[in-house]
Amino acid sequence: MCEFCLKQARSLKPSKSPWGPEDEIGRLNLITPESRAKVLASIDITQSYDLSVDYFMGMPSWSAAGDPPYQIWMTHTPTGNVNDDLMGVSKESKELISYSGDAISMYTHCGTHIDTFNHFGYRGEIWNGFNEKEHLGSRHWTKCGPEKYPMIVARAVMIDVAAAKGVDMLPESYGIGEEDLKDALNKQGTTIQEGDIVMVRTGRMTVWPDRDKYLTNSPGLNIEGAEFLAGEGAMIIGSDNIALEQNPSPEPDNYFPVHTYLFSEVGIPIIELLWLEDLSKAGIYEMGIFGTVMPLVGATGAPIQPMAFPIKK
Amino acid sequence: MCEFCLKQARSLKPSKSPWGPEDEIGRLNLITPESRAKVLASIDITQSYDLSVDYFMGMPSWSAAGDPPYQIWMTHTPTGNVNDDLMGVSKESKELISYSGDAISMYTHCGTHIDTFNHFGYRGEIWNGFNEKEHLGSRHWTKCGPEKYPMIVARAVMIDVAAAKGVDMLPESYGIGEEDLKDALNKQGTTIQEGDIVMVRTGRMTVWPDRDKYLTNSPGLNIEGAEFLAGEGAMIIGSDNIALEQNPSPEPDNYFPVHTYLFSEVGIPIIELLWLEDLSKAGIYEMGIFGTVMPLVGATGAPIQPMAFPIKK
Amino acid sequence: MCEFCLKQARSLKPSKSPWGPEDEIGRLNLITPESRAKVLASIDITQSYDLSVDYFMGMPSWSAAGDPPYQIWMTHTPTGNVNDDLMGVSKESKELISYSGDAISMYTHCGTHIDTFNHFGYRGEIWNGFNEKEHLGSRHWTKCGPEKYPMIVARAVMIDVAAAKGVDMLPESYGIGEEDLKDALNKQGTTIQEGDIVMVRTGRMTVWPDRDKYLTNSPGLNIEGAEFLAGEGAMIIGSDNIALEQNPSPEPDNYFPVHTYLFSEVGIPIIELLWLEDLSKAGIYEMGIFGTVMPLVGATGAPIQPMAFPIKK
Amino acid sequence: MCEFCLKQARSLKPSKSPWGPEDEIGRLNLITPESRAKVLASIDITQSYDLSVDYFMGMPSWSAAGDPPYQIWMTHTPTGNVNDDLMGVSKESKELISYSGDAISMYTHCGTHIDTFNHFGYRGEIWNGFNEKEHLGSRHWTKCGPEKYPMIVARAVMIDVAAAKGVDMLPESYGIGEEDLKDALNKQGTTIQEGDIVMVRTGRMTVWPDRDKYLTNSPGLNIEGAEFLAGEGAMIIGSDNIALEQNPSPEPDNYFPVHTYLFSEVGIPIIELLWLEDLSKAGIYEMGIFGTVMPLVGATGAPIQPMAFPIKK
Repeated sequence: MCEFCLKQARSLKPSKSPWGPEDEIGRLNLITPESRAKVLASIDITQSYDLSVDYFMGMPSWSAAGDPPYQIWMTHTPTGNVNDDLMGVSKESKELISYSGDAISMYTHCGTHIDTFNHFGYRGEIWNGFNEKEHLGSRHWTKCGPEKYPMIVARAVMIDVAAAKGVDMLPESYGIGEEDLKDALNKQGTTIQEGDIVMVRTGRMTVWPDRDKYLTNSPGLNIEGAEFLAGEGAMIIGSDNIALEQNPSPEPDNYFPVHTYLFSEVGIPIIELLWLEDLSKAGIYEMGIFGTVMPLVGATGAPIQPMAFPIKK
Repeated sequence: MCEFCLKQARSLKPSKSPWGPEDEIGRLNLITPESRAKVLASIDITQSYDLSVDYFMGMPSWSAAGDPPYQIWMTHTPTGNVNDDLMGVSKESKELISYSGDAISMYTHCGTHIDTFNHFGYRGEIWNGFNEKEHLGSRHWTKCGPEKYPMIVARAVMIDVAAAKGVDMLPESYGIGEEDLKDALNKQGTTIQEGDIVMVRTGRMTVWPDRDKYLTNSPGLNIEGAEFLAGEGAMIIGSDNIALEQNPSPEPDNYFPVHTYLFSEVGIPIIELLWLEDLSKAGIYEMGIFGTVMPLVGATGAPIQPMAFPIKK
Repeated sequence: MCEFCLKQARSLKPSKSPWGPEDEIGRLNLITPESRAKVLASIDITQSYDLSVDYFMGMPSWSAAGDPPYQIWMTHTPTGNVNDDLMGVSKESKELISYSGDAISMYTHCGTHIDTFNHFGYRGEIWNGFNEKEHLGSRHWTKCGPEKYPMIVARAVMIDVAAAKGVDMLPESYGIGEEDLKDALNKQGTTIQEGDIVMVRTGRMTVWPDRDKYLTNSPGLNIEGAEFLAGEGAMIIGSDNIALEQNPSPEPDNYFPVHTYLFSEVGIPIIELLWLEDLSKAGIYEMGIFGTVMPLVGATGAPIQPMAFPIKK
Repeated sequence: MCEFCLKQARSLKPSKSPWGPEDEIGRLNLITPESRAKVLASIDITQSYDLSVDYFMGMPSWSAAGDPPYQIWMTHTPTGNVNDDLMGVSKESKELISYSGDAISMYTHCGTHIDTFNHFGYRGEIWNGFNEKEHLGSRHWTKCGPEKYPMIVARAVMIDVAAAKGVDMLPESYGIGEEDLKDALNKQGTTIQEGDIVMVRTGRMTVWPDRDKYLTNSPGLNIEGAEFLAGEGAMIIGSDNIALEQNPSPEPDNYFPVHTYLFSEVGIPIIELLWLEDLSKAGIYEMGIFGTVMPLVGATGAPIQPMAFPIKK
């Protein structure tokens, strides 16, 4: 096992990467041609699950600190094109072929997405010693963006904590710790392997897309639970809620202790807003996941639509 | 073979879908659990190719008609957070954990993306009789958006027209017709099967990302070539250029004849800005493709990062 | 007096303009060099009042129907410029001169702004017979935009309804009718003259910028009050609330009866989100207003920062 | 005369403000009730000139470093509202009253606008010792934004350098120095007074809105000319080109020497993209200007539409 992946105790300082001074992707280095082939050989592709949510006007997204909501708008409409002269083509042409176009804007942490290591750090420094002073440009970080990520083909485990506790959704602000995770894993009969994507189900998607119910005071992982999963060898940790971790933070001077620990100390990216409802209903806990991250150069997060295929019995 | 997929002669009118009055996805109906399983069984996953381009400031994109360029910007910076009060957390907390966030805006046809059927139609009507008057909302179409698309797991053929002609890139504005495609297929020793993603390589990516060289007067498919591929059973047609088809259009009153034909008449979506350079260098013409479309409700296009895995020998 | 300005009874149909078939500005035609000179001669410029609110992150704005909130973001920061290479200038140059730049996005009805006649109409038709089918482009209307407006130099009357009733703010959803307006005018000792900007104070700005308190269920003008002011010769009608009129609308099938009446029938633009608190405290009811409208071609609304100077005693 | 306003020799270091450690507006402190009254008494309001350009799709704007172009788009269309359900009102209501809404986005230096002191500085520090480390938030500067500006009512002088030299437009990249300015002032028979807005006409607007001709290699003020105008007591300096000063800069390690000097050393804001063509044709060189700056909290620039009224003979 990767020695680094055993590390777990929190230090509140960014780590140097065991994959070298240029490393920007942390544990995603665990993905290899062999690991992919192993996943491919194990899955039943006749069943498939889309673990992402749609992007739509009014969808809940992180907006407490002024981040913009998802927006889509038309840039061309069939009749509009005829009435304006943006296009430099003949009126006949505009009347014959009905052109529609649209544009979007969004916070990069809207919808099902992955967080990258530049999203959080400690005192101006992020994973592997990269830092604000030298590596933050006017528009984006120059290090640790999602365009550096490989295609994700990996084994995944879904830990259905809500189901293990017999509830639709965990209570508001509930903190999921080591025992909660172990208990659910036991009930499911599943184990975590090094390099797994570990997805923690809180049941929060049962209130989606009601923004008042979904966004604030979410149940989620606490720092103890995060240390446990990191120590078990998780490559990526995901959840069905807005920000993975218990909200509000129990630590007065650290409003996102799990994020800072996972990104800066143990090199684990996070996936948020996962749609785990269908997996939960089907009782599927082990699967192969295929996914690509939208390659937004330097971004702190990026959309991903993970495709899940159950492990063959 | 699907009878509809034999159809090819252009009529300049939208077709009714053979998959019924509610159909919004056309030939993507050809994807089934069985077709996916067949692909999975055939590929060598130890080799992988990412067919998408990165999103970055200044990247070439369609802007001739006023559509917005790709933009990314910071919404939170570590030091900025300390100086402003957007967050409602303590100064100590803001100083300890360095939060960065960013947002993007873009035309939905920026970067490697798929076009949906509401992108073009004839005289206000699109695929399967959906129309501007009843199905265009203030922000987006209510029909034929990419959120309706299934996960794409399909066989694909790359037709390397540029290589077949022994050039790095086809001449400016060159129109690729039936003979060009047949000739390249013959040289490659490949055939098209019903349900294939067919990707036509013009070599245009050899000048990427030089916007002056990449965007205008692109070589591309002509209507004859499009009719041929449709008749061979192509499920999706893609290319490495900005808009698939020859530019400028040879038809004075139809500036996008291939788009209108493929979307409205034969139900074939288009993928543009494909990165085919690595496949071309490796001489890989047949592969399995895994991909998910960013589920932008109602949009006329959406980002996709196709993952290609060669067919096992 | 302008005969048209006496008209007041609601018909629920757009009017033809008395200023001719090309007219796009309605009663703003009442502004003439002579009317401006008269205003200039009457004011005391040593006292000045800014009637606009600032644009800032988190400011209340109309968002119930998905319209985007005010956003500002950096496009260049001094240190960021040094770390990225967007600029094509030397590193020494970037280090010496510290360049900052920023961009904004907003709904055009955010902050103190004027509404234009294309903002509302009846059954696809707006003021003077312009209509959606012929005059709405892909990006904006081609008629009745604020770029057509003249510089506004006009006499104005503030009707302090809240003060006349002895309250800080009128009750939630209160509808201001003819008697309320007449009563306040009498108490103030002021009269409306043809061509006046009439500003109705509800006291809503006393809860600014608390979005929960400011936005919904606002007191405001009712249709009777609007007909009265139109009949008195008002050229523009403004208020200190989010949408001038009483909210919610008392008419089940017309959620903005005052807007449709003023724009489509009597040719009166509206100014919203006026800062009238200082005028109210100073007891100033008659003044000259200077203002320019941000010339956003074809827009449905545009920012304005009215400068008010009291009429000399 | 204000002693500070005599200062002119460049030091390449930010100055402390003579108006105290809290000052964020520099020479705009010269505006007083008395100075406004003097202007009011001197102008002929029957003639009026709008010195601003319209905002429209495709308008030339600064985009060389990735800043976004002006965009406007519909957020509501009459028919679109009926087809979607963003509004929560009845279908009858949506059909009866035709609601249109739109939104904009833009670089704050687009169109006729004023630059604020946080736009440029030296080595991380701006006017009066404010600095990036302490005063740059995530979204905008916390110091020197346009919301701090008073209403601008001031005397203005237009120096028509192009006319003085008998050309429509000065040659590409021409640097306007002290002698050019003095010569034009002499020919016009005008003098600069302390507190004046000084507007330098290069004739660049004669090629507006041709972006290829307008944007790059503009004639403009050089540092010598800027020092002269500062020493004469100019309160604001404006021009009809994209960036006031000669482009490209003659100084290899300072691509905007006039900006840095005016903002950081002598406390003079800049107005760009002024429409001076009508003034030039009418031979009007002295006037009163009324204007308000769009109060974008903390921004580096903001739209302004100056209204000019000639000085009475």
